[in-house]
Amino acid sequence: MRLTNFSDYALRVLLYAAARRDELITIEETAKVYGISKAHLMKVANQLTRAGYLKAVRGRSGGLSLAMRPNKIRLGDVVRATEPDFALVECFTADNQCRITPRCRLRGVLKEALGAFIATLDRYTLADLVLRPEEFGIRPAA
Amino acid sequence: MRLTNFSDYALRVLLYAAARRDELITIEETAKVYGISKAHLMKVANQLTRAGYLKAVRGRSGGLSLAMRPNKIRLGDVVRATEPDFALVECFTADNQCRITPRCRLRGVLKEALGAFIATLDRYTLADLVLRPEEFGIRPAA
Repeated sequence: MRLTNFSDYALRVLLYAAARRDELITIEETAKVYGISKAHLMKVANQLTRAGYLKAVRGRSGGLSLAMRPNKIRLGDVVRATEPDFALVECFTADNQCRITPRCRLRGVLKEALGAFIATLDRYTLADLVLRPEEFGIRPAA
Repeated sequence: MRLTNFSDYALRVLLYAAARRDELITIEETAKVYGISKAHLMKVANQLTRAGYLKAVRGRSGGLSLAMRPNKIRLGDVVRATEPDFALVECFTADNQCRITPRCRLRGVLKEALGAFIATLDRYTLADLVLRPEEFGIRPAA
């Protein structure tokens, strides 16, 4: 069982933006900090901007910053905004072929388990996870 | 977020074996019932046998049957036995490269959420899901 890299990277971008809250971050430096591809992070940042978690400042000295206070960003909501689906098994999808689906109670049990997973994430916000810039290898300005 | 097909199929094999509890089932008929590949199901059945959920009777009129009572088969345990890992994000894996791992609190939160997922499954057993043979399209013997 795994989350998509997309969700993983989204959480990392938010963590980095939270650590550098008084500055603008760039995709380039975020990619360098985590050693992940700029192209991936670009898509992630676009989605986080669309979902209202980041705001983009355009221009040469532009960049990204958190659009909400960290204590307002619930982790369950982030994952809801970044996972393409929560199709744990085939019968959660449109192309389901399983013949027992109409009578099967497994789907209900799996949905309940998924609900417990997300509810746990919703008990935490980005504020519970914030690190200092130094923890990303960023030296404090002199 | 999804479970592997392996876990999905394992749960289906157990459901089918539970429906036909007084008989031996075969990989061939189980594959036909669900419209999934025999080769996949063979691996799944081997794993379920190794894990003690199925027992195999060899020979021409052989087959598989549940090795435990359905009310002793907890769904969380089945998924623990069939998922290759629960590596929700990169830092759960051996080849993790994320530089904030030593200080990051996200992993702990995700582990807690995963625990809630599995704990929910553990509140149910195969007995909660049992269907009748007719619900698999099997006609009762005359």
